[in-house]
Amino acid sequence: MKRLIVDMDDVMADATGQFIHYYEKEFGIRIERSVLNGKDEGEGFPENHHVLREFPYRINFFRTMKVNENSQEVMEKLNRKYELFIVSAAMEFPQSLPEKLEWLNEHFPFLTWKQFVFCGSKAVVYGDYMIDDLPHNLEKFNGEKFLFTAPHNMHVNRFGRLNNWREVGERLL
Amino acid sequence: MKRLIVDMDDVMADATGQFIHYYEKEFGIRIERSVLNGKDEGEGFPENHHVLREFPYRINFFRTMKVNENSQEVMEKLNRKYELFIVSAAMEFPQSLPEKLEWLNEHFPFLTWKQFVFCGSKAVVYGDYMIDDLPHNLEKFNGEKFLFTAPHNMHVNRFGRLNNWREVGERLL
Repeated sequence: MKRLIVDMDDVMADATGQFIHYYEKEFGIRIERSVLNGKDEGEGFPENHHVLREFPYRINFFRTMKVNENSQEVMEKLNRKYELFIVSAAMEFPQSLPEKLEWLNEHFPFLTWKQFVFCGSKAVVYGDYMIDDLPHNLEKFNGEKFLFTAPHNMHVNRFGRLNNWREVGERLL
Repeated sequence: MKRLIVDMDDVMADATGQFIHYYEKEFGIRIERSVLNGKDEGEGFPENHHVLREFPYRINFFRTMKVNENSQEVMEKLNRKYELFIVSAAMEFPQSLPEKLEWLNEHFPFLTWKQFVFCGSKAVVYGDYMIDDLPHNLEKFNGEKFLFTAPHNMHVNRFGRLNNWREVGERLL
């Protein structure tokens, strides 16, 4: 059984949408996703973008993220075909640790805690395939790499790309 | 730089001592460590041993563990010689996640969050050396394995053994 490593934020969870939602609550300005295309995380917001470094420290920021479309049904099938691990670089935000665990238990109940890894650097994990939205995570990985499309990676073209969960299913199931 | 993977409970932290302490608080009986020799974790306590499955769910159980003797000074030196990761199978106990992070930050301030990994299964990490007290963690590891002595592994003789942190320093520094 091949090992597949899947990221959470902006892959399983709509992290970008959560930033947009928190930004609108705080400043009354709704930022369109397209405005964020090709800009580093947090750099596409027109002003007060320093708060984007604060949002992830707030209670429930990670707990209340929306699930990305089609991820649940595709993950359930992937879980039968692969040795599946969820690997999230969560260590920077201490409060995110129990919140991410609760989020996974709620939205992906067919996974077990034995499949979850919260780390600082993903350099320490290995497997056959990795799906991630951040180039620096893929770069350290030895297996086959798939860049999951997010606004901040639109300009990156050195990895195989999966644009959504339907494409994940088509490529890996 | 070779990669060294070090476990927390019963390697860096005195988990056995914490179980003994909580057991004494709860039942007024002080269990000697030698009574636990060669018995699975939690199996050496004479009665009410079911509570040993409850203690790890209690607030502060992980946060207040004592640091094992000499671990801090040896780890500080290892941290200069190796690419060092702390890998703890913490996912079974959600409350332990922020507590373990705080514990590491307090007692090992020379390490950074980028070096911490909290997982369910250690099968997903790789490196050159692993120090762990649990045979099943070492068995899944591809590099060189060192069993760190704890009461529950006294009967295990299929791994190289390190009895304390002074021996860790002698072997790996």
